[in-house]
Amino acid sequence: MYRPNHLDVILIGTGNLAYSLAQIFQNHAMINLKGIYSKSPKTLNDFPFEVNPLSELNDDADIIILAVSDNAISEVSTKLTDKKGLVVHCAGGKSIQEIQCPNRGVWYPPISFSKGQIVDFKNCSFCLEATNTQHLLLLQKLSELIGASWNIMDSEKRLKLHTAAVFANNFTNQIWTMTEEYCERNNINFELLHPLIKEGTEKALAMGPKKAQTGPALRNDHETLKRHLELLNSKEANFYRIMTQLIQDTHGTQL
Amino acid sequence: MYRPNHLDVILIGTGNLAYSLAQIFQNHAMINLKGIYSKSPKTLNDFPFEVNPLSELNDDADIIILAVSDNAISEVSTKLTDKKGLVVHCAGGKSIQEIQCPNRGVWYPPISFSKGQIVDFKNCSFCLEATNTQHLLLLQKLSELIGASWNIMDSEKRLKLHTAAVFANNFTNQIWTMTEEYCERNNINFELLHPLIKEGTEKALAMGPKKAQTGPALRNDHETLKRHLELLNSKEANFYRIMTQLIQDTHGTQL
Repeated sequence: MYRPNHLDVILIGTGNLAYSLAQIFQNHAMINLKGIYSKSPKTLNDFPFEVNPLSELNDDADIIILAVSDNAISEVSTKLTDKKGLVVHCAGGKSIQEIQCPNRGVWYPPISFSKGQIVDFKNCSFCLEATNTQHLLLLQKLSELIGASWNIMDSEKRLKLHTAAVFANNFTNQIWTMTEEYCERNNINFELLHPLIKEGTEKALAMGPKKAQTGPALRNDHETLKRHLELLNSKEANFYRIMTQLIQDTHGTQL
Repeated sequence: MYRPNHLDVILIGTGNLAYSLAQIFQNHAMINLKGIYSKSPKTLNDFPFEVNPLSELNDDADIIILAVSDNAISEVSTKLTDKKGLVVHCAGGKSIQEIQCPNRGVWYPPISFSKGQIVDFKNCSFCLEATNTQHLLLLQKLSELIGASWNIMDSEKRLKLHTAAVFANNFTNQIWTMTEEYCERNNINFELLHPLIKEGTEKALAMGPKKAQTGPALRNDHETLKRHLELLNSKEANFYRIMTQLIQDTHGTQL
């Protein structure tokens, strides 16, 4: 059935992004999810949608979304070279050229995905890339239909954003991991720090992180810095010194 | 007027903690704020409460709260040695011994304070320390009256918690500062990363940071790591290598 103004979409992949998108697409009034495909549809205990083998994908759609791992994009796209629809990947760190189809694009949400978590795209701004205006309009429409905003960004800049995202997300998360380890070793309930972490994040976003900085490194409080270092193992102490130096470099504090 | 079950409180200090506490105390049904004092009450343009010079503090109260900077605690407390009330400081990194009064205690909220931000104590668990049960009960009551929870923690453990708080808050904030600098240098709107930062924090708290980790370091994705490093200046690249190594050490990923 032809439905004007609707978007026909095919989804490839069974990871967290595919799962979150399938959840949104399946009951969407304006998006027609024509099918979900995967190279290996048999290993899907916790994916509650019908998945067909990629080899059986004979259909076409306005947009074919590759919600697959970075390294699978190129190979999967070689099986879609006959499609008339726009084939897009969702990877921040991969060029549009990874897609081996004539109608190629990128639809990258700068958010992170973890198993068992449904992603909320509402506050997310998809980074769009395509080779012509018509395709950009399609991706703009898809973003808006799921309540997200969008911006146009080429592959080079997107890789830079992806690099920044590693700092903003993976590296801060590693610090919390180290903090939790330290707390466990010292019999401190890590949850005592939850309000600080939550509030610290909100403050960094509201005021900007540079202005939001506090603490002994910023104040150049030698005595506290020294007493903290005495309570850390050598690896943690080394990291504490590196971070203290970086804070003082940023804020021009005298060591 | 004697009011049973009420707490009489005196506040010393004019910083953000004092400001936030004064806001809560001033109209509280069960807390009687008997006065706010400061060593230097003249420099108070943006502190909308009546402040008296510390030299004029002739009154007493159930609890006298030193909401002053770490380095001022000891000196200010020497002026309060005649008080019958419980004199407490609010510093994570300072021992209960900093207070030179016979009735001493600590009432430490593990949250951070920045100028112009009113603190919400509702989700905060105050760390209490005192020299007898009666004083602990007073601090427990004060915490509960402002809607906070509490836990009992000695000075040694509190300093460890304070050390952990520097990791959890100051160090992560420095990474966001570096991220914002990188974005500005590359003409990327840092706000594109706000949803990732917000969601990453929520995920770390909900799942635990170790389980929430994602990204190229965890996946040992050599190609992406290499391409990211090429987009960083030498200082950032050095830091990127350090964090990558730490993530891989934590998760046992092969380099």
